[in-house]
Amino acid sequence: MERILITNVSNFQEKEIKIEGWVYRIRKLKNITFLVIKDRSGLIQCIFDNEVRDLNTLKIESVISVVGIVKSSNNSLHPCEIIGNEFHIISEAQELPIEINKKELNINLDTILNNRILSLRHEKTNSIFKIQNIIVQSFREFLIKNDFTEIFTPKIVAEGTEGGTELFKVDYFGKTAYLAQSPQFYKQMMVGAGFERVFEVAHVYRAEEHNTSRHLNEYVSMDLEMGFINDEFDIVNLEEKLIKYMLKSLEEKAKRYLEILKVEVPRIENSIPRMDFSEAISVLREVYGKENLEDDLDPESEKLICSYVKEKFNCDFIFLVNYPIKKRAMYTMPFKEGGSRSFDLLFKGVEITSGGERINNYNMLIESIKNKGLNPEHYENYTDIFKYGMPKHGGLAIGLERFTARLLSLENVREASFITRDRTRITP
Amino acid sequence: MERILITNVSNFQEKEIKIEGWVYRIRKLKNITFLVIKDRSGLIQCIFDNEVRDLNTLKIESVISVVGIVKSSNNSLHPCEIIGNEFHIISEAQELPIEINKKELNINLDTILNNRILSLRHEKTNSIFKIQNIIVQSFREFLIKNDFTEIFTPKIVAEGTEGGTELFKVDYFGKTAYLAQSPQFYKQMMVGAGFERVFEVAHVYRAEEHNTSRHLNEYVSMDLEMGFINDEFDIVNLEEKLIKYMLKSLEEKAKRYLEILKVEVPRIENSIPRMDFSEAISVLREVYGKENLEDDLDPESEKLICSYVKEKFNCDFIFLVNYPIKKRAMYTMPFKEGGSRSFDLLFKGVEITSGGERINNYNMLIESIKNKGLNPEHYENYTDIFKYGMPKHGGLAIGLERFTARLLSLENVREASFITRDRTRITP
Repeated sequence: MERILITNVSNFQEKEIKIEGWVYRIRKLKNITFLVIKDRSGLIQCIFDNEVRDLNTLKIESVISVVGIVKSSNNSLHPCEIIGNEFHIISEAQELPIEINKKELNINLDTILNNRILSLRHEKTNSIFKIQNIIVQSFREFLIKNDFTEIFTPKIVAEGTEGGTELFKVDYFGKTAYLAQSPQFYKQMMVGAGFERVFEVAHVYRAEEHNTSRHLNEYVSMDLEMGFINDEFDIVNLEEKLIKYMLKSLEEKAKRYLEILKVEVPRIENSIPRMDFSEAISVLREVYGKENLEDDLDPESEKLICSYVKEKFNCDFIFLVNYPIKKRAMYTMPFKEGGSRSFDLLFKGVEITSGGERINNYNMLIESIKNKGLNPEHYENYTDIFKYGMPKHGGLAIGLERFTARLLSLENVREASFITRDRTRITP
Repeated sequence: MERILITNVSNFQEKEIKIEGWVYRIRKLKNITFLVIKDRSGLIQCIFDNEVRDLNTLKIESVISVVGIVKSSNNSLHPCEIIGNEFHIISEAQELPIEINKKELNINLDTILNNRILSLRHEKTNSIFKIQNIIVQSFREFLIKNDFTEIFTPKIVAEGTEGGTELFKVDYFGKTAYLAQSPQFYKQMMVGAGFERVFEVAHVYRAEEHNTSRHLNEYVSMDLEMGFINDEFDIVNLEEKLIKYMLKSLEEKAKRYLEILKVEVPRIENSIPRMDFSEAISVLREVYGKENLEDDLDPESEKLICSYVKEKFNCDFIFLVNYPIKKRAMYTMPFKEGGSRSFDLLFKGVEITSGGERINNYNMLIESIKNKGLNPEHYENYTDIFKYGMPKHGGLAIGLERFTARLLSLENVREASFITRDRTRITP
């Protein structure tokens, strides 16, 4: 007998069918027992006579198959139920370490993460990743439609991208290598390899010592890079279209999961406002009395700017453009006195993207590397391609977990990571 | 003036347009110069009067923009050409270390890989990855249509999957961790987390010492895992449908690139033949005189079985089922005396998939771990989920580069890897 998904049961009124899933709830009355069964598509109630064998010893979260007759029910949420004839235990569950079959999980984040696989069974936790799936798929879809090529670039690298110390060391056959902090060099190289437009969705690694609610040591970076641009605003405009496309996909495809999480997709009325970095500094000083801000924004400033923009423009997003070159990576294209052709995208109080135009001139790149106090010889594998014809280009990266967390207003980015890797967490 | 892609130039007859790209060829006559320009969409010829400034010093592979008038040409391959008015150098190229603008690259693999970014500019090399893109996209498409959830699982792990020694060590904040050999444990855990059907396309890492034409130390694994199966043949049947879907997508979307590489997509007339492992051993002994084969096939045997199947069933694929349990990983579901519910898929002489049904019973799994001489305590993070209700499940993995290499009959799997990581190669 073929398994029927719970969501399709209503097509089999008065017929005998088989369903398979986890035992979500057991309610025993004098003569009958109600079992609620859960599969990936939903929940359904099954009614058994208490005489049925092994019903007494059945445990919550065991995996079972149920054979029974479909009947319409008078429950508005679940139009059908199953009058069970027999059930068969596929896998018996022991007593659970956490209670997962309630409306809310109501346990602290550490306990959630320690019991990650079980906590994922909770409808609300599960929905986060169904929504994340649509984010990723729409990211790829948009870029494929726009003639981007998907790339897979090495995560074991000989040198770090940003020249920082936040690198995990790998023993590569006796040689020291590192885990890639980003696909930055490679995606630029692939533009120069003739693909022109490339993207990658893959893990990146940051050996940052701090354990904050915004950082993961291993996270999924949605990267893109595009050649033959005029300036950084081609990238800004592309990201605006991309974000709109992703939000639209969410509205179309994520309804069920957004309702479970009681979240509404933010609307972008016309376009995402753009603000010069220096203007943001002025706003922070004049409106919020923040002092000592110069080349970068601290987390509090990001939040303040976002509330300012929300109030003034009714938008959850803001592009901050023309960041001071001082705090940007060596591949950043400079602009006027001290500025750069780079930008951040903030979303509900947190930076979710850094991007911009990159230097495409070999000599300028070598000078920039030197100016950052780095040794150009260490970057030859990267800089070489700039000798052989490199279009003007730029790109950006969106942190997948961070974007998901902001979209769903999750307090901690860990909630949007399937399996968290942080300062202390290397299991499960 | 907006850039026009070369493939769209024919829509602008007699109009002035701008194109941008790499200088592919320069041919100077007495009064005029022919420039062939290349962008991601194709090639076009531009004709310049020799009086045009800087034409003399222009170098192959420089990136330039050309403004000129579109004219129809009498060249059958390129229906248009551009009468150039002016050009502008975006990025000047130095002399190239390899000659890339010929019909064939004609350089050895080492030189290709040492000059990877330039070699990728060659039409034939580039096309490999355009085809690979369609493989990956159709893999995801098929699984999303079949209700699979995409997962992102950690590549920094506390324990290896297979218990072997072929692990790269990572220094994780002073603790020893490893790079994941496969997402095996996590994909099974995600089935048990309620997603039921999951897939992942991501890098995996094998610290294998041998440097063969079939191995990479970092490669892209296309993984899937599915719950609520009856047995391994649900996985075999799924893969057959998946492979057919991928081949169909290639026929529809990869035409241009398949023609460049002069490759035809293999046809599967009805279904992919299935052969018991023991039958394969008999064939090898009786037809090819191979002796001393017992629990596994060596590369030569894989080739011989594939020629046998090609001749007998006219198929480039063969499922070998019921592998001896002795050589399979500890999570493999056993079958009868010494057999297992696991299979390999061979394609044109090489194994491209291992898969099968997994053990879903906690006690049986612990016993199996012990039987392999491993310590169950090291696997608690994995085995724990089997205590709390685990459906019957199975899955498989397809090596992306290997599949691409077989499809295109490339001699070495490195040709199908954007950037190779092998025993000696950690750059570029």
